[in-house]
Amino acid sequence: MTRPAAPDRPGGTVAGLGEFALIDRVVARAGVARAAEVGPGDDAAVVRTPDGRVVATTDVLVEGRHFRRDWSSGTDVGHKAAAANLADVAAMGAVPTALLVGLACPPDTPVGWLEEVADGLAAEAGPLGAAVVGGDTVAAAPDSGAVVLSVTALGDLGGRRPVLRSGAAPGEVLALAGRLGWSACGLAVLRRGCSGVGGEAIAAVRAHRRPEPPYAAGPAAATAGATAMCDVSDGLLADAGHLAVASGVVVEIDGAALAAVALDPPGPLHQVGAALGVDPMAWVLTGGEDHALLATFPADARLPAGWAVIGAVAAATGDLGAGVRVDGRPAAAVAEALGAGGTGHVHFS
Amino acid sequence: MTRPAAPDRPGGTVAGLGEFALIDRVVARAGVARAAEVGPGDDAAVVRTPDGRVVATTDVLVEGRHFRRDWSSGTDVGHKAAAANLADVAAMGAVPTALLVGLACPPDTPVGWLEEVADGLAAEAGPLGAAVVGGDTVAAAPDSGAVVLSVTALGDLGGRRPVLRSGAAPGEVLALAGRLGWSACGLAVLRRGCSGVGGEAIAAVRAHRRPEPPYAAGPAAATAGATAMCDVSDGLLADAGHLAVASGVVVEIDGAALAAVALDPPGPLHQVGAALGVDPMAWVLTGGEDHALLATFPADARLPAGWAVIGAVAAATGDLGAGVRVDGRPAAAVAEALGAGGTGHVHFS
Repeated sequence: MTRPAAPDRPGGTVAGLGEFALIDRVVARAGVARAAEVGPGDDAAVVRTPDGRVVATTDVLVEGRHFRRDWSSGTDVGHKAAAANLADVAAMGAVPTALLVGLACPPDTPVGWLEEVADGLAAEAGPLGAAVVGGDTVAAAPDSGAVVLSVTALGDLGGRRPVLRSGAAPGEVLALAGRLGWSACGLAVLRRGCSGVGGEAIAAVRAHRRPEPPYAAGPAAATAGATAMCDVSDGLLADAGHLAVASGVVVEIDGAALAAVALDPPGPLHQVGAALGVDPMAWVLTGGEDHALLATFPADARLPAGWAVIGAVAAATGDLGAGVRVDGRPAAAVAEALGAGGTGHVHFS
Repeated sequence: MTRPAAPDRPGGTVAGLGEFALIDRVVARAGVARAAEVGPGDDAAVVRTPDGRVVATTDVLVEGRHFRRDWSSGTDVGHKAAAANLADVAAMGAVPTALLVGLACPPDTPVGWLEEVADGLAAEAGPLGAAVVGGDTVAAAPDSGAVVLSVTALGDLGGRRPVLRSGAAPGEVLALAGRLGWSACGLAVLRRGCSGVGGEAIAAVRAHRRPEPPYAAGPAAATAGATAMCDVSDGLLADAGHLAVASGVVVEIDGAALAAVALDPPGPLHQVGAALGVDPMAWVLTGGEDHALLATFPADARLPAGWAVIGAVAAATGDLGAGVRVDGRPAAAVAEALGAGGTGHVHFS
C-alpha cells in the first residue's frame, strides 16, 4: 500500500502530540449532535432517545482495504466511514443521532490527516443533526502501518417500527433508492490511474471517495409501509441475497427496470465502462459501497419520493430456495456471465 | 510482539472461513441482551432505552499494546475489552445494556481465538444483562499482523442524573470503589516471566488479564448523590487529575486512607512488590486498567456499600491550579519519588 512518506501537514504526528491532546484536537472538530445531553470528554456520552429505543450499528474501515491515503483525503475517509454507518441506521427506518469513533493509528500518522477525518465525519453527519459524541484514539500495533477506523452510529426510530431484512413476503414489490455501481466504477478509474477515461469519470471517483446514501429514504420507506429493508454495501446481488435469505423468499430483479433506474440517463458508468470494456450493469449488480437502500413494499403501497420499483418478491421454490434471480436467472449465473467473479463486492486489496 | 506461529485450534483461520461465516460464528456466542429488541444480523441493532437517553462509550484495544496473545487467552481479551467499556458506562451511573464490536484481524487469526473473544465478551457482559448486539468483522491491513478490537457499550440511566467528571466542589469527600494497582502488578509479573515471585502473584496476573470493575458501585453512587465520577483506567493520579481539571478543583488524596483501602490486608501487591523491589503504592497510584471507580460526594452523604473515603476536594489555588495532591504534595512529585516516571499509566509496548 502506498502511503505518504512523511508527515507533511502542520501539527506534526500522532506520536508527537500524545493521546489526550490528539483527542482534544479531534473533538474540537466534532460538531454538535442535536440529541446529545453529554458530548465528548467524559467517560461516556449521553444521547437522548425520544423513541424509547436506540438503533446502533458498527462498521470498521481498514486502511489498505477500505481506503488508501493516496486515493482519498482524510476528509473523504471521514465522509465514507460516517456514510457506511449512517446508511445502516437509515436502513432500519431511523434517523441518525450520534457517532462514536474508535481509531487505531500508526505513530507517524499526521495529525492534520486525522483532523481531516474528523472534519469528514462532522460534514457527513452534520446535515442529519448528528455528530461525533465520543470515542477512543490509540496508537496502532508497533508493527502495523495501517489506520483502523471503527465507527458506531446511533439513531432514533421516531415511533416507527424498525424495518428488518426478514419481513419480505411473496407478491410484494422490490424497490431501490439511491445510486448503484458508482463507487465500483470510481474504483476502476483509480486503479487505472485515472488515465484513458473521460471527464465524467471524476463523478464516479468522487462517488467512490464520498458515497451519497439516500438517508431520508429510509425513514420515508418505513412510514410508507416497507416490509423489509437493507442498505447495499456489499453489492445489489449480495445484499438482495441477504434480504431474500432472511425473509425466506426469492427476490426477482427486473433487469430492464433496474437499468431504467440505475443507468438512465447515460452517465459515468457508460462512459467509463466503454473506455475500460466493462458492462456498466456489472457495476450496478455487484458494486458495493454506494449505500443505496433496497426495500420491499406491499404491492399496493404508494412509494415515497426517491424510490423506484426494480422487481418483485416471489415464494422460495424447491430448486433455488431463497435467493435472487435477475430476469429469471440465478444471481450466481448472472454475475459469472458479467465477469464479476461472484455476487459480492470485493475490496481492492 | 510474540504471536502463535500457526493456527492450532479447530475451525481454521479467519481467511479460510470468510467474513459472513465468521460473523455467524461470533454471533452464535453473543448471548442475549435483555434490552435488545433487534439483535445481531440486521443492518443495525435496536436496543430499548427506558430512560429516554442512552449512555454510549467506545474503547479500542490493540494487540501488542493492550494485550498479547501469549499472555492472555482470547477469553481474557474479551473480558478485558468488555470490562473497559462497561466500567465507563458504570462511571456515568448507568447500567450496561449492550455491546457492539468492531474487529480487524489478520487473515491467519485462528477462528477459535475469535470465538474465545466472543465468549469473554459474553461472559463479562452477561451477568449485567448485556450482550453483543452487533458489530463488524474485517480483515486487517495486508501488512498488519495485529488484532484491533473496538468495543462500544450502551447503557441506561434508569432515571438517574448522569454523573460527570466536572461536578466536584470544594468541601466534598473523595471516595473509591474497586481495586487499584492489581493489573499493573500482574503486568510486572508477566514481564518477569512469572519467575521469582510467590504464589499470590497469580491473583495479580489474573487481574491484569480480567479486570473486575465494581459495576454496581456506579449506579449506587449516582443514587447516593455522587457529584462527580470517573473510572480509573489510566491510573489513579492521572484519572483523579482529569476529574480535578474538569471540575476546576484540587483533589486531595490521603495516602494513609488510600493505603487502608488499597493495601490492607497485605496481598499480592506486597508480595510481588517485595520480590521485585517495587513500592506497592506506586502501582496503586499509577497503575491503570483495574477500572476502579473514583467519585466525589457531599461531605454529609452516606456512601453506598463498596465505597470508601480516600481524600477530599479543595479549592484550586493559585500556585497549583486544578490538580491532584497526595498528602499535600503535587501528583507529579509523588509519582517521580515513587519512580513511576509520570502520573499516568503507560501500556507495555
